[in-house]
Amino acid sequence: MNGPVLALAGGVGGAKLALGLSHVLPPRQLVIVANTGDDDVFHGLHVSPDLDTLMYTLAGLANPATGWGVVGDTFGVLDMLKRYGADSWFGLGDRDLATHIERTRLLREGRTLSEVTRYLCGKLGVKTALAPMSDDPVRTMVETDQGTLAFQDYFVKHRCEPSLRNVRFAGASKAQASPAFQNALNTAGAVVYCPSNPVVSIGPILALPGVMEHLKEFRGPMVAISPIVGDHALRGPAAKMLLELGEEVSCVGVARRLAGICDVLVVDRQDAHRVADVRAAGMDVEVMDTIMETDADKERLARELLQLVETLVES
Amino acid sequence: MNGPVLALAGGVGGAKLALGLSHVLPPRQLVIVANTGDDDVFHGLHVSPDLDTLMYTLAGLANPATGWGVVGDTFGVLDMLKRYGADSWFGLGDRDLATHIERTRLLREGRTLSEVTRYLCGKLGVKTALAPMSDDPVRTMVETDQGTLAFQDYFVKHRCEPSLRNVRFAGASKAQASPAFQNALNTAGAVVYCPSNPVVSIGPILALPGVMEHLKEFRGPMVAISPIVGDHALRGPAAKMLLELGEEVSCVGVARRLAGICDVLVVDRQDAHRVADVRAAGMDVEVMDTIMETDADKERLARELLQLVETLVES
Repeated sequence: MNGPVLALAGGVGGAKLALGLSHVLPPRQLVIVANTGDDDVFHGLHVSPDLDTLMYTLAGLANPATGWGVVGDTFGVLDMLKRYGADSWFGLGDRDLATHIERTRLLREGRTLSEVTRYLCGKLGVKTALAPMSDDPVRTMVETDQGTLAFQDYFVKHRCEPSLRNVRFAGASKAQASPAFQNALNTAGAVVYCPSNPVVSIGPILALPGVMEHLKEFRGPMVAISPIVGDHALRGPAAKMLLELGEEVSCVGVARRLAGICDVLVVDRQDAHRVADVRAAGMDVEVMDTIMETDADKERLARELLQLVETLVES
Repeated sequence: MNGPVLALAGGVGGAKLALGLSHVLPPRQLVIVANTGDDDVFHGLHVSPDLDTLMYTLAGLANPATGWGVVGDTFGVLDMLKRYGADSWFGLGDRDLATHIERTRLLREGRTLSEVTRYLCGKLGVKTALAPMSDDPVRTMVETDQGTLAFQDYFVKHRCEPSLRNVRFAGASKAQASPAFQNALNTAGAVVYCPSNPVVSIGPILALPGVMEHLKEFRGPMVAISPIVGDHALRGPAAKMLLELGEEVSCVGVARRLAGICDVLVVDRQDAHRVADVRAAGMDVEVMDTIMETDADKERLARELLQLVETLVES
């Protein structure tokens, strides 16, 4: 394979595979591009949940119980912010807040989100390239039966309970793909869609101008891991969202979303019976054990994926 | 006495008397104006050390071991900020940082420091009026044998070790006294100088345009408590600073600083033998137990001061 693997990822689910890939690929052979449509401002601080989940995971700092936040974190700041009457539904730990404080300071000094991410990753010893999808603001807005909600408002405050009508990515049409993302689109040897929510994690990345065109014309292998196994999302609201958007809640629904910009969908062994349906949706298919619980699971799946990619390069 | 007591205060020393006054006066009869020359920006957040020490003290949240910061605070944010390579010599606790986060957010929204202080105090249940000396930036700059240092740089990072040559208050000539301070200067029945550092706590307040003139023409009683007992400051670098500025390190040195804008200097019983010298410096003098360890000490001294003020009103 010529050029690095470009991995597109959201938060916790995507971070599992991203970690596996980072363990089996040399740093220069992997570029992870994160969704920033979930970004928001809390208490005046710029929070990038997916970037941080990926960064903490790659740094070995992620809270294993939740997948997000920093292991062993405390909640002193939030405790006091509550006394000040501030919203506290977004559970920011103290060490996590240090990231947002430092990011916000650097952004205010005029650095880009890409630069800040590189700086923070460097300080935490993350050697793999991790970049935001864009340095421009893109905000995932969820239109529901309870009105239009910013993504975190829907996801955390309302626990995904409102019924979905539509999802849009405010600012996406005027946003540019980040320099590292653009570069990777031009130089990558393969694209991997991590098992992230197809609507609100991969969706915003695809909504950036030029990205769909680049992917449609991409010459190397493009593979995806279905975040839906059976009729359930492995985590998060992907199943409920697909259902409410009128799409099929299965690996086939995922295949329909990615047809045209992905060569092979990797489905879990539990979905082996859907192989023909995935092919009918316009995509080749491979069956693997996709459920990642341990680090060994993550590395094994990453290795199998890379073998698949090598096979596709050779064919 | 007609009108409230206007108490001018710096941090920990001043806060002791401010607490005593707040316990013996109804809220409407006391306005505490705090030095903001020590304010600085850490990690992009606006920190007002003296305002916060006063606020936490009045709210019953101050750390009794230090006098500043929040009791029982943790240091998770600072711990992580260190990993990001940020300066960590200014020991900000997590709950304390919540104050700076909330203050910074509100200031960025366009509120004044006075408004923010009132808001935060309200949330913490502080009924006494506490106001910054100014809503405009004033920065105490310390000229030393190691160059010019911002106050916190001198005070915390360099532990007051550099030898002092001069102190100036950058921005003071263009700053306005805050609305509450101006109002109190016009309506107060008495002025109390809390036992705060005369150079860097009371000094910046006096450096604001018009304040000296107002105090010189003030009609009610003006009393001060010497922060120097014997030849030592009760806390902080006041003694070292006065010495290096070539002034006498004693209650007499304090009296010389306040002559013309204070009627009576209250000195500690240990300084009873300096009464004639204080009078020679141009000020009347009273002897009291000024060392405040317990809340009872603070209330007793506040009561004795108010009795003194009443006597002066009647005379």
